[in-house]
Amino acid sequence: MQKPSGANFILKGDICYSKTHETLNVCSDGYIICIDGKSEGVYSSLPDTWLKRSELPVIDYSSCLIIPGLVDLHTHAPQFAFRGLGMDLELLEWLKTYAFVEEAKYADTQYARLAYSALIENLLNGPNTRVVMFATVHTPATSLLMDMLESSGLVSLVGKVNMDRNCPDTLREKSASHSLAATEEWLSKCAYQNVRPILTPRFIPTCSDELMKGLAGLQKKYNLPVQSHLSENKSEIEWVAKLRRGSSGYGAAYLEDDLFGGSVPTLMAHCVWSDEKETALMAERQVYAVHCPQSNTNLSSGIAPVRRFLQAGIPVGLGSDVAGGAHSSIFRAMADAIQVSKLRKPLLNVDEKPLTLEEAFYLATVSGGAFFGKAGMGASGSFDNGYEFDALVIDDKNITPPFEITIRDRLERVVYLSDDRNIKAKYVRGRSLT
Amino acid sequence: MQKPSGANFILKGDICYSKTHETLNVCSDGYIICIDGKSEGVYSSLPDTWLKRSELPVIDYSSCLIIPGLVDLHTHAPQFAFRGLGMDLELLEWLKTYAFVEEAKYADTQYARLAYSALIENLLNGPNTRVVMFATVHTPATSLLMDMLESSGLVSLVGKVNMDRNCPDTLREKSASHSLAATEEWLSKCAYQNVRPILTPRFIPTCSDELMKGLAGLQKKYNLPVQSHLSENKSEIEWVAKLRRGSSGYGAAYLEDDLFGGSVPTLMAHCVWSDEKETALMAERQVYAVHCPQSNTNLSSGIAPVRRFLQAGIPVGLGSDVAGGAHSSIFRAMADAIQVSKLRKPLLNVDEKPLTLEEAFYLATVSGGAFFGKAGMGASGSFDNGYEFDALVIDDKNITPPFEITIRDRLERVVYLSDDRNIKAKYVRGRSLT
Repeated sequence: MQKPSGANFILKGDICYSKTHETLNVCSDGYIICIDGKSEGVYSSLPDTWLKRSELPVIDYSSCLIIPGLVDLHTHAPQFAFRGLGMDLELLEWLKTYAFVEEAKYADTQYARLAYSALIENLLNGPNTRVVMFATVHTPATSLLMDMLESSGLVSLVGKVNMDRNCPDTLREKSASHSLAATEEWLSKCAYQNVRPILTPRFIPTCSDELMKGLAGLQKKYNLPVQSHLSENKSEIEWVAKLRRGSSGYGAAYLEDDLFGGSVPTLMAHCVWSDEKETALMAERQVYAVHCPQSNTNLSSGIAPVRRFLQAGIPVGLGSDVAGGAHSSIFRAMADAIQVSKLRKPLLNVDEKPLTLEEAFYLATVSGGAFFGKAGMGASGSFDNGYEFDALVIDDKNITPPFEITIRDRLERVVYLSDDRNIKAKYVRGRSLT
Repeated sequence: MQKPSGANFILKGDICYSKTHETLNVCSDGYIICIDGKSEGVYSSLPDTWLKRSELPVIDYSSCLIIPGLVDLHTHAPQFAFRGLGMDLELLEWLKTYAFVEEAKYADTQYARLAYSALIENLLNGPNTRVVMFATVHTPATSLLMDMLESSGLVSLVGKVNMDRNCPDTLREKSASHSLAATEEWLSKCAYQNVRPILTPRFIPTCSDELMKGLAGLQKKYNLPVQSHLSENKSEIEWVAKLRRGSSGYGAAYLEDDLFGGSVPTLMAHCVWSDEKETALMAERQVYAVHCPQSNTNLSSGIAPVRRFLQAGIPVGLGSDVAGGAHSSIFRAMADAIQVSKLRKPLLNVDEKPLTLEEAFYLATVSGGAFFGKAGMGASGSFDNGYEFDALVIDDKNITPPFEITIRDRLERVVYLSDDRNIKAKYVRGRSLT
């Protein structure tokens, strides 16, 4: 099959993408045009203006599904090595016993290269085209990860982690000023096409007030997006309340530090126990709630109130949160998100509509992809004109039932039943990665 | 690689099987002996008596994991065709809208052959070696399914479904006596090596009192095991209470019908909302609770109190419940069971220990396999002497982390991360199916 050599081409197939939270755009046996790495729109038949441009190859994926690439808004690169292990503890004990022990190994860049190679191979084989990652505190290993991601062709935001308290000596940065200096050193080396830095205070328990203030300064100086963790687990929330007695809440503490939305593009992972006040603050500041359903289950955290977030107008995306979650695929996160949303009614007696397939797809594509737009990289997640062209071509023949189904229903089956063998082609910013 | 032609051979590899709910037996680079389709035990080095039997081939699976085959105690064969579809309704509406509509198609044996072929191919590729299935009300399609399963080499218990009320005309048997006559006709044709019939009143709402009494008669006449559904969903329980006003509960109604444990080997799927009284009755009658965690999530039913069942001494096994569940693999059911058990504490404020890997493995192997022993087919699920030899050989190289891990931890990763590509060989009753 002919593959595009440049970034200008036309794909033909059964196209499906989100229009709104509630509706899909579907075009059977249609065309998508990609020019200079961006979508020029979807057509049921090729308009004359495009037909005349005979230099544009039409790549025929008839009978395959074509959907936008998926976006993982929260994962820990150094934890990939131990995903699917040590699933017997809750958050704070799990961090001590498993996560911090593994992360300390990334002081050794040789180990980092070995472990990150497996991670990137896994990502290339899967459905995600964009990822937002926590690396570790180590500047060399973080730069190495970014170099490797740049070569992969995936689009990513990567953060060197900041921690100057409440973590093992092997990982604790000596002081706030050491942490800030290392961060600036790391930032000075960030010069990539497809990778950008994101400021990454791990969470309030591991970051002194001085460090947070310093990071806010770097945020302003370099105009950086920010990611952290929020209200994942009840013990964590109690701990934060003790550490920040002057603050009126966990989210409010980030806001006091000038690292909570507004002009600062901000991702907050989890938000399982965000109360009404915190939810209102997130909506006002347009802070992303990154829903990580599998991790919240594995670590016995709970089920985030995503329906309430959507009703409040908070931007929501999905995260694999490897290795709290065992699976990097955002198809799995979509299914998990729908599934856990169905347990809130019978277990909590709340009258909330579970998430629909359409909503989960929107979160995984348009909503996740919009954060990259906010972070200055160009939005992905849709095939409407002007979006960066991230696309998956999915051959779903082996999961076709013995009766006719719609393109929408094929998408549902792909979410629940497909694996990397079904991904026939993968485009990121118009470049084929397969 | 040399494969056993007969049923006598020795496997070499990293062996792991359950001893109790809480403990694994692990034998690194060990041997399992299979004679006449049964295990003769596990050895760290081959005893002289066996070394002398030079006719026994030693099949070398060094570095692979060898574990017992997995047991699916609850699935609906005709629903396989639409797994991963229609996940937007709760039980009773879902039955009407999706399940019954699909099952009606099995009046056509040509359709049944097409759909069941895909099911059996999927099962052969996956980790389950034994399954207990609901077929449909149709005698010809049920016999066809059993013929096809017999040819596959898998071990199974299959039930022609009984329904004489509260279902569409296309599926409702004309009367109790018609249903019973069809059941006896079907039973008269059951002559297989690896497949046995199991009586299958769908659930009380679809079976009149007369039908239940008649089925109890057939149970005694033919000494058959029984399967049905119990306390899956609150609306269903209310409905049963109305239909059986004289009964003191849902389980109690089955007991009044003489179809609830004691001398009758009985599987009851779900038991999500079984109260203390029902739990005590199940323990007393040694009725199996078949835990189907993914289905209970997808259909918004809830999370079964498996820890309470285990503490009460109720036998527990796992079920995929396709198509309430989308996945047939019992590895997935093990992971799902562990995961949902972790949500009971944060959501229900119960002080229950979540299920461990060891417990989930026990349920999927020894406990599930014991039901086949009760049902007169020989137990599977362990490698101790005398167990029928169902085994999986798993090549887990592609999910090996960049550090040393124990065999127990390899098993954990296999549960969360493996797929059918990792299954290198599969033995059922000593016969290789690969």
